[in-house]
Amino acid sequence: MTRGELKALIRTIPDFPKAGIQFRDITTLLAHGEGLAASIDMLADMAAPLGATKVAGIEARGFIFGTALALRLGVGFVPLRKAGKLPVETIAEDYALEYGVATLELDPTIINDGEHVLVVDDLLATGGTAVAAANLLRRAGAVVNHALFVVDLPELSGSQALAEAQVEARALVEFSGH
Amino acid sequence: MTRGELKALIRTIPDFPKAGIQFRDITTLLAHGEGLAASIDMLADMAAPLGATKVAGIEARGFIFGTALALRLGVGFVPLRKAGKLPVETIAEDYALEYGVATLELDPTIINDGEHVLVVDDLLATGGTAVAAANLLRRAGAVVNHALFVVDLPELSGSQALAEAQVEARALVEFSGH
Repeated sequence: MTRGELKALIRTIPDFPKAGIQFRDITTLLAHGEGLAASIDMLADMAAPLGATKVAGIEARGFIFGTALALRLGVGFVPLRKAGKLPVETIAEDYALEYGVATLELDPTIINDGEHVLVVDDLLATGGTAVAAANLLRRAGAVVNHALFVVDLPELSGSQALAEAQVEARALVEFSGH
Repeated sequence: MTRGELKALIRTIPDFPKAGIQFRDITTLLAHGEGLAASIDMLADMAAPLGATKVAGIEARGFIFGTALALRLGVGFVPLRKAGKLPVETIAEDYALEYGVATLELDPTIINDGEHVLVVDDLLATGGTAVAAANLLRRAGAVVNHALFVVDLPELSGSQALAEAQVEARALVEFSGH
């Protein structure tokens, strides 16, 4: 499968969650067995040279691609969870949403000091969530140099925001006209 | 890895989310690369003879195991999402929580009429969520005969609740003393 074929499996929903936004929806990609496998193959090809010893996925859609990628790389998976989900003492990082603030939480005891952690999420928009993820993992002792995404919306400059935080972003496909 | 070794990777947190509850936490299993791989191997061995053409995972932890299992089986993944997350017209099913009600939503257009869908979640407690998942998938046209879990808490009788809904539950490990 080519990246163009993979991109064609991602559905665009106009005016969600509000008028003027083109929502890029991976539900149709996930439901397509070959497309799902191809997306993980491509992410694994990107990730293989990066030397990560864990993959961190951002709740909830980052869990989908992150776990599959961790398995392919033969490393553990770290869930970065929404507030209040983890049953242990956590560290937390807030990030801005369009309206308001959200929080990611991490159990810092599952990160080994100095290990390389790869951040994974389905979609890169402004990069705020992924920057918070990198900050959170670093506070727990991780080295975070790379973040992988299925979809990048380059007009929202997420890869620049990540670069400013010393994280290199890579994505399988890009969509313009958000 | 044996099932006993896998079970030993699951952490027990006393008195979460409230006094008297022993929370069985898979975070430590996920972070363990070999343990994560072994759990998916074992789930895949259970799932292989069941003939599923899609795997459905319940948000959020069901996404972790469900996607990995779908990839191993070479089929598509269907996310059963919390209310308000899917950008399309959905069908919804409510289920009881200890206090209140929660809702699962599905995009019914991604289910082919009559296809066999396997339900996956991390933990089986009373079975209410998994029964709602099966009902929702059946309303979209799926045949749902089986549900797989990493952990079963048999004292909460979830497998009986699923059996009453004509769903056979299987789990990798059991914990008593919830």
